[in-house]
Amino acid sequence: MYIPVYKLKDMVQQDYERIMKRSEIETTDILPIVEKVINDVKTRGDEALVEYTKDFEDIVITKDMVQVTAQEIKDAYNKVDEETIQAIRTLADNVKKFHAAQLPRKMWSMEISPGLVAGQVLIPLDKVGCYVPGGRGWFPSAVMMSVLPAKVAGVSQVVVCTPSAPDGSVPAGTLIACDICGADAVYRIGGSQAIAAMAYGTQTIPKVDKIVGPGSKWVLAAFKLLYGEVEIGTHAGPGEGLIVADETADPEFAAADICIQAEHGLDSAGVLVTHIPELAYEAQKRIGRHIERLNDYRKNFVVESLRKYGAIILTDSLEESLAYANEYAVEHLEIMTKDPFHDMQKIKNAGGIYLGHYTPLSTGCFGSGPNHVLPTGRKATVSGGLKTLDFVKDVSFEYFSKEGLGNLKDAMVKLADYEGFPAHGNAILERFAKD
Amino acid sequence: MYIPVYKLKDMVQQDYERIMKRSEIETTDILPIVEKVINDVKTRGDEALVEYTKDFEDIVITKDMVQVTAQEIKDAYNKVDEETIQAIRTLADNVKKFHAAQLPRKMWSMEISPGLVAGQVLIPLDKVGCYVPGGRGWFPSAVMMSVLPAKVAGVSQVVVCTPSAPDGSVPAGTLIACDICGADAVYRIGGSQAIAAMAYGTQTIPKVDKIVGPGSKWVLAAFKLLYGEVEIGTHAGPGEGLIVADETADPEFAAADICIQAEHGLDSAGVLVTHIPELAYEAQKRIGRHIERLNDYRKNFVVESLRKYGAIILTDSLEESLAYANEYAVEHLEIMTKDPFHDMQKIKNAGGIYLGHYTPLSTGCFGSGPNHVLPTGRKATVSGGLKTLDFVKDVSFEYFSKEGLGNLKDAMVKLADYEGFPAHGNAILERFAKD
Repeated sequence: MYIPVYKLKDMVQQDYERIMKRSEIETTDILPIVEKVINDVKTRGDEALVEYTKDFEDIVITKDMVQVTAQEIKDAYNKVDEETIQAIRTLADNVKKFHAAQLPRKMWSMEISPGLVAGQVLIPLDKVGCYVPGGRGWFPSAVMMSVLPAKVAGVSQVVVCTPSAPDGSVPAGTLIACDICGADAVYRIGGSQAIAAMAYGTQTIPKVDKIVGPGSKWVLAAFKLLYGEVEIGTHAGPGEGLIVADETADPEFAAADICIQAEHGLDSAGVLVTHIPELAYEAQKRIGRHIERLNDYRKNFVVESLRKYGAIILTDSLEESLAYANEYAVEHLEIMTKDPFHDMQKIKNAGGIYLGHYTPLSTGCFGSGPNHVLPTGRKATVSGGLKTLDFVKDVSFEYFSKEGLGNLKDAMVKLADYEGFPAHGNAILERFAKD
Repeated sequence: MYIPVYKLKDMVQQDYERIMKRSEIETTDILPIVEKVINDVKTRGDEALVEYTKDFEDIVITKDMVQVTAQEIKDAYNKVDEETIQAIRTLADNVKKFHAAQLPRKMWSMEISPGLVAGQVLIPLDKVGCYVPGGRGWFPSAVMMSVLPAKVAGVSQVVVCTPSAPDGSVPAGTLIACDICGADAVYRIGGSQAIAAMAYGTQTIPKVDKIVGPGSKWVLAAFKLLYGEVEIGTHAGPGEGLIVADETADPEFAAADICIQAEHGLDSAGVLVTHIPELAYEAQKRIGRHIERLNDYRKNFVVESLRKYGAIILTDSLEESLAYANEYAVEHLEIMTKDPFHDMQKIKNAGGIYLGHYTPLSTGCFGSGPNHVLPTGRKATVSGGLKTLDFVKDVSFEYFSKEGLGNLKDAMVKLADYEGFPAHGNAILERFAKD
């Protein structure tokens, strides 16, 4: 058995808390190193980037190789099969459609009271940096999920930093995705040095207004140290999937889906919550088959993750399962029930929701439309995923006619007086001083 | 002369940088004290609140006095004149209208491709804590600006922490504003102990999902230390006002308006930018009159703030003035020109925009509609002000029919393979395994 079945009401506190808490990325030990990297990049720019790429990744580049050339991007199309290129095109198109729909009116205004018009205008950020990780996999999908929302929002310069492969090349799929999604520049720099470069700018890499994207603990450590220096998008921690299922769910699907997030690393989570005992035990039995199909590299992650953070939770009712899901506040929530759109209305906390029997959460990872950068570690209690609005500013404006200000001046000056701000009141009264 | 006139193109670098940089709130020296306060409140709850209220504010309260009673709120209405109460009602109504208009559709969905529906649902946060400062003034307006957006967003529990006056009472205007705006509870606790109480919860004060509101350096220090523990709204630093004006502007209005933000404290900023020399020098002459009208307490703030961060900047054209405003990225931007709605379109960076000759920025402070919690210290380059959307989560959802998944399965599995995530692909293929 790869995963235990717990009855929720009989669950011992220690298990309950372990499953609920999940893992955290620990960066304390590397903060001093990352601090040095940041300071070096800040003061020495490209030179430091070249050095750290050698030191950390054992890859030799020169300063004029920091930026990926147009020719390299063109050549990338010859290194990947046509089906993969077409897949990126199709899925990027879905993501673009969804994120365009997220964008509200560029401007609106209303008459608050006679002679007082107030409204709001959306202004895109000027420069955005997208970090696209390497390491355990190559991520054209991560390019889509950060570059497209920024471009759809109207950001004028969207740049990508990504580590190169051991041979110094940048993975072709990543470059193709950058090209298809409209990234304005790609730099072959990874880790904390990439984050520092985008935060402060170097001779080659521009200083950006905001940095988004997933990454290793090195990236997370850089985000922590740069808090307040540059705007940073929510950083997603280890992956999590939770499935709420009823008697209509296929245990085979549930078993397969528990493994999805668990293959990301050693600290991911996969949980099934159901009030149907047969489903719980059937799914438990079938997980092995899905794990056995994986290569050793991924198998190791799934086994280890499920051992630590995997569980099948048996509740007394669908109601209770949904309540548990709210308490868990998972990154990816599947609702595999008879009427998932109805049950979704009971959900208060989830990063992204996957409805019905044909929506395994992996669909969201690869470009069904919604973003795959979602809150982990119970952050779904307070925020949603990355979205187009994260790349714009909502700026309010207001206009008074003289009559409009006349209507409200007594109330405003009264409140200014009560709060003890005479210069605030005087500026209003000055408009009527010559009457 | 309270304020110098600088020609932008002749400005020495030192002055340019001083005006552009503005002040920062320094918290390093108090962090150890605040850390102790936070730990104490976390472990000992109300008891610690009572002790710190005695230690820091020299006010004696008991544990059962932490929450303001319904009777105290009722009595507050007898302590303030009817005009002030009516002013709070009128202005709160404006703020409520504007923030209701900020809220987009609660739910939307679209067909991304045949058989794939994706959408987004807005879910309000559950509990929000609003900090309302005391100290240099009483702030019914601060109640409106945090409680109303949270209530409009649908937050179920909105609580307020605010320090009491030396006699242990909470200012009547603050209580009346809490009542009018629909706050669910008010606690007479201020400073870092209030922030810690809302972050962790005590016997009396609930643990909240997010804390918003302005405050002293003690509050800011608590926000810094609690980063990652609780969601925190943008903290506004010292106030800033910048006025772009042309030949249609009245120098008397410009002079009065430069003083508005400067009266907030010793580190605020007031700047006029114009290409009209007569306006620059006329406004410069008239500032003295507006300062002389203030009481000594506020006069001291204005004189000191303008000495450090005040300036009249003379440019060569309106175009250049607007460009300077973008570079400055001010909290409050007034556009006092012939066609302010037109000129506003050139603005990329501003917290809030005040248009025309009858919209001194103080109107925004007291309830014209838009929020008065706005980004300071060049944060307007990356974010707007506090808004209704800050109290909701945008949660995405998606649904595939079997046919819908069939249409996209090859593209998704292709990308999963390329990225090296077999369990992601298997979960999709499993849906078609028995066909």
